[in-house]
Amino acid sequence: MAVLPDSVRIREVGPRDGFQNEPEVISTADKVGLIDELARTGLRRLEVTSFVRADVVAQLSDAPQVLARIDVPEAVAVSVLVPNLRGLEAALTQRERFQEVNVFLSASETHNRRNVNRSVAESLAGLHEVLELARAEQLRCEAVISTSFGCPYEGQVAVARVLDLACALRDAGAQEISFGDTTGMANPRQVGEFFALAHERLGGEVELTAHFHNTRGQGLANVLAALHAGVASFESSFGELGGCPVPPGATGNVATEDLVSLLHEMGVCTGVDLPGLLACTRHLQQVLGRPLGSHTLVAGPIDWRPGAGAEADLVT
Amino acid sequence: MAVLPDSVRIREVGPRDGFQNEPEVISTADKVGLIDELARTGLRRLEVTSFVRADVVAQLSDAPQVLARIDVPEAVAVSVLVPNLRGLEAALTQRERFQEVNVFLSASETHNRRNVNRSVAESLAGLHEVLELARAEQLRCEAVISTSFGCPYEGQVAVARVLDLACALRDAGAQEISFGDTTGMANPRQVGEFFALAHERLGGEVELTAHFHNTRGQGLANVLAALHAGVASFESSFGELGGCPVPPGATGNVATEDLVSLLHEMGVCTGVDLPGLLACTRHLQQVLGRPLGSHTLVAGPIDWRPGAGAEADLVT
Repeated sequence: MAVLPDSVRIREVGPRDGFQNEPEVISTADKVGLIDELARTGLRRLEVTSFVRADVVAQLSDAPQVLARIDVPEAVAVSVLVPNLRGLEAALTQRERFQEVNVFLSASETHNRRNVNRSVAESLAGLHEVLELARAEQLRCEAVISTSFGCPYEGQVAVARVLDLACALRDAGAQEISFGDTTGMANPRQVGEFFALAHERLGGEVELTAHFHNTRGQGLANVLAALHAGVASFESSFGELGGCPVPPGATGNVATEDLVSLLHEMGVCTGVDLPGLLACTRHLQQVLGRPLGSHTLVAGPIDWRPGAGAEADLVT
Repeated sequence: MAVLPDSVRIREVGPRDGFQNEPEVISTADKVGLIDELARTGLRRLEVTSFVRADVVAQLSDAPQVLARIDVPEAVAVSVLVPNLRGLEAALTQRERFQEVNVFLSASETHNRRNVNRSVAESLAGLHEVLELARAEQLRCEAVISTSFGCPYEGQVAVARVLDLACALRDAGAQEISFGDTTGMANPRQVGEFFALAHERLGGEVELTAHFHNTRGQGLANVLAALHAGVASFESSFGELGGCPVPPGATGNVATEDLVSLLHEMGVCTGVDLPGLLACTRHLQQVLGRPLGSHTLVAGPIDWRPGAGAEADLVT
């Protein structure tokens, strides 16, 4: 058996990555209520919104209001996503309200161009400016590399290309690199090999984070492979919200509840109170008015107490 | 990285384990059509029905008709589940129509009693007779041990108890032992440790099979742990059908499509044609008149060809 870490860090990205994909507008009050509740579950990292143009992501056009109104305990690191310098400058008008900034680009040219209408080199040059200002403002900097494990337009993405980008982002000031499986193409063998190489190239200098999707049901298997490859930092979304909802009905990010359940069952600490987190997701279901796909939400946490079980059915 | 096997064996259990949990009656013609279709996807093991009392599982009361009518290529091993000697004798009236027989008991007393109204010792004694007759009839014998990784009534189930039962079943004639995670309580750390011990106790003499549920989304992570622990035989159900549907809405067995997708992406052969299997599951959806939960069915298989991708959405 490969060794598992004693504890892992989880960044909840639902309020940004999840909400931005919701077709119906979520009120600012509901967003703030859910974020405040999430911040009291033991989660220590919370991505709360994104300072993007309102004509690009209307759902997050209330980013300044959300950031101003949330009431989050000091132990929780609040992060905001910014696409560019203008986004960061907008966020900085409330500098005291957050501790981390997340920037992003894609590993594949086609995905990057479709996403932000720039080449990867242009994105990287722009992020140099963003990271420089963010570091000057004493913000902790995370850079997300989308399509790290495969691109829906280009297919295979060379590991060397992803790691070259990661090194460039580190050199530009990123203290954490998150590798995104944007459309759920990663498999555990690939994940294990990828992070072994990533640790060789980057290990120790920056925090390496894994961001998996559950598109083909393989999200937690990829988490397990990453754990065995020494990864101890993950991003996930409560209620399995978000990610890339293509094709329609496809599941998105790994559900935070399912991730926490898996880790706790294996004896890996997360600091998260699972029943409290499930209460948040039930609240989220009420806000969205539809059932959510998180398995642990539907089935409930595993209860090992003798006599706890509900009725079980016939056989195997 | 732990070594993965070059290939694995998959037993499709949907026509028995899946169908028996369906509330609406499925016609014999539909069952036969689906089984015949499954048998042409490259699956080499197919559990087609169960010879149980009609007042216990009405859905499978057409077991003799199903067995008589299916048209399955020679390369496919057909198996039937039998709860007792009477069930086996009923199946044996069509001895030439199947090659394998599956028997079962639970590792935990409470689950066994609720399931078959007998103590585990009584079940084991009964299975001695069943296995003796089955072996005399040249049938290959599989024994399933339910609640091998935890019991919804009793909580923890001692590994030694499960392995003692496995040894007793082997001594009674079972050539394959399947360990069932009946209500989805297993985690990958436990699975790895369990199968390491199982191989020590039983390795080489009997085939060891893993039967996981996806109740908390951890099904494929458990598969990965089992693969790394040397398991190369799995049971799963097309469309994620079946398993223990408690609580309502909870997912059941690992979906065969998701299992095959995971294995193929890791370079592990299954012999299964994934598009053909997905066609079966779409057919199953039509028969049942409701959408099914298999992730690969909803999202489609991963397509690595450049330019194959659909529209993807903004970011990470």
